[in-house]
Amino acid sequence: MIREGLNIIKVGGAIVEDEESLKGLLMSFSGLRGKKILVHGGGKIATEIASRLGVETQMIDGRRITSAEMLKVVTMVYGGLVNKDIVARLQALGENAIGLTGADMNLIMSVKRPVELVNFGYVGDVKYVNTRSLKSILEAGAVPVLAPLTHDKEGTMLNTNADTIASSVARALAGDYSVTLTFCSSTPGVLRNLEDPTTLVKTISKTDFDSMVSDGTISEGMIPKLQNAFEAINDGVSKVVITSPSDLSGGTTILADPETDD
Amino acid sequence: MIREGLNIIKVGGAIVEDEESLKGLLMSFSGLRGKKILVHGGGKIATEIASRLGVETQMIDGRRITSAEMLKVVTMVYGGLVNKDIVARLQALGENAIGLTGADMNLIMSVKRPVELVNFGYVGDVKYVNTRSLKSILEAGAVPVLAPLTHDKEGTMLNTNADTIASSVARALAGDYSVTLTFCSSTPGVLRNLEDPTTLVKTISKTDFDSMVSDGTISEGMIPKLQNAFEAINDGVSKVVITSPSDLSGGTTILADPETDD
Repeated sequence: MIREGLNIIKVGGAIVEDEESLKGLLMSFSGLRGKKILVHGGGKIATEIASRLGVETQMIDGRRITSAEMLKVVTMVYGGLVNKDIVARLQALGENAIGLTGADMNLIMSVKRPVELVNFGYVGDVKYVNTRSLKSILEAGAVPVLAPLTHDKEGTMLNTNADTIASSVARALAGDYSVTLTFCSSTPGVLRNLEDPTTLVKTISKTDFDSMVSDGTISEGMIPKLQNAFEAINDGVSKVVITSPSDLSGGTTILADPETDD
Repeated sequence: MIREGLNIIKVGGAIVEDEESLKGLLMSFSGLRGKKILVHGGGKIATEIASRLGVETQMIDGRRITSAEMLKVVTMVYGGLVNKDIVARLQALGENAIGLTGADMNLIMSVKRPVELVNFGYVGDVKYVNTRSLKSILEAGAVPVLAPLTHDKEGTMLNTNADTIASSVARALAGDYSVTLTFCSSTPGVLRNLEDPTTLVKTISKTDFDSMVSDGTISEGMIPKLQNAFEAINDGVSKVVITSPSDLSGGTTILADPETDD
């Protein structure tokens, strides 16, 4: 069976915040033919607005704690300000963009992360993706622009990592489309030396990843991003790439685990 | 031809801001059978957040001036905070709600109001409603929740009055559905004496309206609301009512102008 292609592009907060990078990304995105989805992060804009509103930003191990007040801020900033700005700009480029969160049409249902060592507050771990509704939007010719927000189906919005949303949506739609999942970051991909773009790793396997984490070549935010990427490539997604917004056809390609005879 | 029914309920900022009123409205709304659309205002939440952000709220003749900074605030508050809260709560009530602005799927395109006596700033006058996209959403079984925001199709969001959005959408869809347009306000309808709910006017014609404006019975915000209502009833909308959220089947019914033999 030949499945239709679907491009899912995830763009991080650092790009969204930088006018030139965002402009370039939106131009590249609108140049992609066929079905596509844009997933965006929010990043520091929420922190800045929270601070102006007198809402304290609490981070533990580089992860945001989402208090009830902070949930309001991210719902405003990610679901309103950032999402609608991107939608309006894509519309100006002739794209039939539609801005959505996980609550809209119950697209992404999540559960509030259980309190273990850390209480992350209103953070949602994805429970399911409503592929039927998402497909109906895609088949209507619209281009979903997804904010990093989900809901618990009990009336509460939840803050969810944009990489996780992109990976979850890609895996859920992999049965219906030949999905290419592209993580756009401010680096051109996985680098052996962060300071030197020429040390780009063109392909990475799980074995490479494990050894590069052990020796410290890969660290911080790249670790969960690659974990999301491996989950996607091993769960039916056709292609997974990490690249910069200016080079959607380059970057680091994630290799699936070798198939085993079971 | 028997057209399918469509209920369009517009709910104002005063109700959205009051937890008990909003709860009652959402319960009543979820009790409505068949196709439906909810249009919400935003009101004072935007003013309050703007003030906390140090953005000045400028009003001329009771109308908000939308500066570039205020546009960001209303996009956040109306398009994010208020819209997604309503969507998540309707989802919890089993409604397939989808939160949208005029930019999403280019549903409502507007033009920035020309500067004449007053420069209203980033305020959009509705140019067209994309009935085809709106119908595709309704036919997919979703329940649109519309924020009072439109766009100019050139990349900029615009602030648009929620009554105007409700009336424009009702008129645009009147060719396809038998539309009932209900404006929910904090009063039970048009009152002869604002202090006394028993003086409710059950029906109002354009002639009644003109004389009640002349003698001061109808004033302020009720005037543009009724103007929107008369435009709707005279432009193919089947029924137009002004009522309170707790009594969606009561209130003041707007009478169409008598048909002339032309």
